[in-house]
Amino acid sequence: MPILIKNAEYLVGKHNQIEKNIDILIEGAFISKIASSIKTPVGAEIIDAKGKIVAPGFINSHTHLYQNLLKGKDDRLSLTNWANDVIFPLGQTIMTKLNNEEAKRITYLWSLLAGIEAIKSGTTCVLDMDLRHIDVMRGWIDLGLRGVCARTCVDKWVPQGLVEKPAEQYAKIEELIKNWHQTPTDAPLVSVFLGPSALFTCSETLLRWVVETAEKYDTGIQIHVSETEWEVGHIKEEFGLRPVEYLDKLGFLSPRVSLVHCVHLNEREISLIAESGAKVAHCPKSNMKLGNGTAPVIEMLKQNIPLALGTDGAASNDLLDMFEEMRVAALLQKVKQEDASVIGGEDVFKMATANGAAVCRTNSGHIAEGKLADLQLINPNQAHLTPHHDIINTLVYCARANDVETVIINGKIVMKERIIKTINENEVLREVNAMQKCKRLQI
Amino acid sequence: MPILIKNAEYLVGKHNQIEKNIDILIEGAFISKIASSIKTPVGAEIIDAKGKIVAPGFINSHTHLYQNLLKGKDDRLSLTNWANDVIFPLGQTIMTKLNNEEAKRITYLWSLLAGIEAIKSGTTCVLDMDLRHIDVMRGWIDLGLRGVCARTCVDKWVPQGLVEKPAEQYAKIEELIKNWHQTPTDAPLVSVFLGPSALFTCSETLLRWVVETAEKYDTGIQIHVSETEWEVGHIKEEFGLRPVEYLDKLGFLSPRVSLVHCVHLNEREISLIAESGAKVAHCPKSNMKLGNGTAPVIEMLKQNIPLALGTDGAASNDLLDMFEEMRVAALLQKVKQEDASVIGGEDVFKMATANGAAVCRTNSGHIAEGKLADLQLINPNQAHLTPHHDIINTLVYCARANDVETVIINGKIVMKERIIKTINENEVLREVNAMQKCKRLQI
Repeated sequence: MPILIKNAEYLVGKHNQIEKNIDILIEGAFISKIASSIKTPVGAEIIDAKGKIVAPGFINSHTHLYQNLLKGKDDRLSLTNWANDVIFPLGQTIMTKLNNEEAKRITYLWSLLAGIEAIKSGTTCVLDMDLRHIDVMRGWIDLGLRGVCARTCVDKWVPQGLVEKPAEQYAKIEELIKNWHQTPTDAPLVSVFLGPSALFTCSETLLRWVVETAEKYDTGIQIHVSETEWEVGHIKEEFGLRPVEYLDKLGFLSPRVSLVHCVHLNEREISLIAESGAKVAHCPKSNMKLGNGTAPVIEMLKQNIPLALGTDGAASNDLLDMFEEMRVAALLQKVKQEDASVIGGEDVFKMATANGAAVCRTNSGHIAEGKLADLQLINPNQAHLTPHHDIINTLVYCARANDVETVIINGKIVMKERIIKTINENEVLREVNAMQKCKRLQI
Repeated sequence: MPILIKNAEYLVGKHNQIEKNIDILIEGAFISKIASSIKTPVGAEIIDAKGKIVAPGFINSHTHLYQNLLKGKDDRLSLTNWANDVIFPLGQTIMTKLNNEEAKRITYLWSLLAGIEAIKSGTTCVLDMDLRHIDVMRGWIDLGLRGVCARTCVDKWVPQGLVEKPAEQYAKIEELIKNWHQTPTDAPLVSVFLGPSALFTCSETLLRWVVETAEKYDTGIQIHVSETEWEVGHIKEEFGLRPVEYLDKLGFLSPRVSLVHCVHLNEREISLIAESGAKVAHCPKSNMKLGNGTAPVIEMLKQNIPLALGTDGAASNDLLDMFEEMRVAALLQKVKQEDASVIGGEDVFKMATANGAAVCRTNSGHIAEGKLADLQLINPNQAHLTPHHDIINTLVYCARANDVETVIINGKIVMKERIIKTINENEVLREVNAMQKCKRLQI
């Protein structure tokens, strides 16, 4: 059924310029027409957008959805202790205490739980790095959320028993890609990337296999790089090179790659990334919470590296809220450089939308004819958003998750007037809370 | 009419420990009883808090409410240019383009507009630094919001015409205090502080008059201190001393004083503040947005300086959202120190509540028998707040303004199920938007 959005007060259009009083027609998964007045097609569902802002949905370019089960846990741990004390025990609980059906169910549930949070804050696509993906993708499909599963691969450091042996991983991942990956032209709701976890957890053999496999199936790659000072030292000690230099030497960097974090880069590494066409998924709140440092965003922007924005997992954030992530991204650079002029609302808005689409290889990220219909309707008629001087700045610095009223993904209304239309949100919350109260299943 | 809050799932009690399944009785402006089961008094209004969190209302220890009219304006300016290009023009518009009735009306309106935003994000008390206070206080009284007006005094730097001559200021301020100030034991909704704007805008004569007058009327003082590197250099050049050293030499520092910002302090200045009993109002998001730097919060905490939290004005934030301010305060210190362990959720929660009460000299800031009934009911049964591992961390890192359902101030329900009960919110928004569309009145 076509959807006609009528009389949008403000449309955040291509290149994020603001248009006023405009209609948007959605047919199938795509935006087919944008004009000042569009005739209602037969059978179309009409959305009255009078007084509303229509904006592209946010693309959360890096997260770990399972961490939604760990919200609000210990907030005083650095990365290594945090991994050992907060992250790994969840995997161990799943592997050792739950039977297969329970493990599948909890995976499906966290996909829904995190997916609901994402949609309810205007996000239309998430890139999720994890090991257990089939039930996560089932969650996305039931919810109607676009998602990229970056399947974790790892053969060092992680505690034994948490992952399969390399040969088994290779086979499983190829099977996952064959069964689930679709190319962007299919307007797929889900797609599969390769997610080698980090340089200190992946051997050279594994990294070379990742590059070959991604080329073979034409898919994307995402890897954590230079999140901590410790990691840089560790890689230098092992290979005599800084992390990005090492990736460059391996021939790993290319436009299909996104590097997550990039907190500790030197000038040469920034140039190597820029030359390679690789992208960066910047996760400012997570970098702050774990005390990892502040990424050289301004230096990367100067070299035109496409920077996207991610919340990272909820155990190091603890929200999947791209509104807050945008403003913290801007504020953090202003204070780091002690110069308010270095970055503006429009820069971080682009990170959260068009550049996210580049990382996720989706035909979305802004509202234009021929683009995927992944968008949000926001109600600016509220005290904390009044008056309106500059709509992009209003969205970046003032808007909050609850201001999003309607979310459309892949041409389908998944949230209307803040009610998720595709699944029963209360049932999901009830089941997660019940699981949390059951001693054996408790996370 | 008494109010009985029944069956709170979680109560954030004294010293912020969590109690479960508890009743809270409110009589007059105060909390009269907290127990596991309280008999309903005759004629009491009952609030069912099953499944909810009851927490102290937030105290926004430093803001400028008029700046709510400037939300989303230019976001690339440093303090001086921002004052000249964004802040002063509003004052000039009010002084030159509006007649007296219009100036009074717009003042009343911004008080309501900002007050609604504050209440709708769980804030029960604001400290507002400004020149035009009578109509602001009328707004607070109509809205039922507790407020401290820190009346700006200034005799240097600010453009001519924006403020009266010193003698005229002195007289006006004394009149304001006599007419409006009430001591804390009266449970007053509004009170009056002295607000010398900053060391570079106030002469020594003015600062000495402030101290004398505050003692005479037993009221508080708030002043901006060391917000920028420029200010420190400027004061050193003029007086041969750093700002806090100069204040100490003047005999300005005392427990009745709160110093706003304190971004650039050396060790000696931190010790001087600690010894004096003065308090600090920390405004992390504003310091970030204007590129001013990161306050030495950890060093101040080590010396037991009572640190409160403020949003500052909406032109440098752009929200009056204490949830977001708390988490940004924590994250900013973790990243500054590159150490996640330096500060925790409970530290910033205390800044936003009990320490705010110390700055505002109100008998509030936590929920206990005999304290003012200034509190909020939060609904934790939402995807972005599920599951609950640690209630204080859930509030600090995950909760958002819209999760606040009910707000009680001074024993009166001012918001219920997110509807402001005291004034018509839509009328306020309509009037502000209409004013904004009128060329002559446009800000």
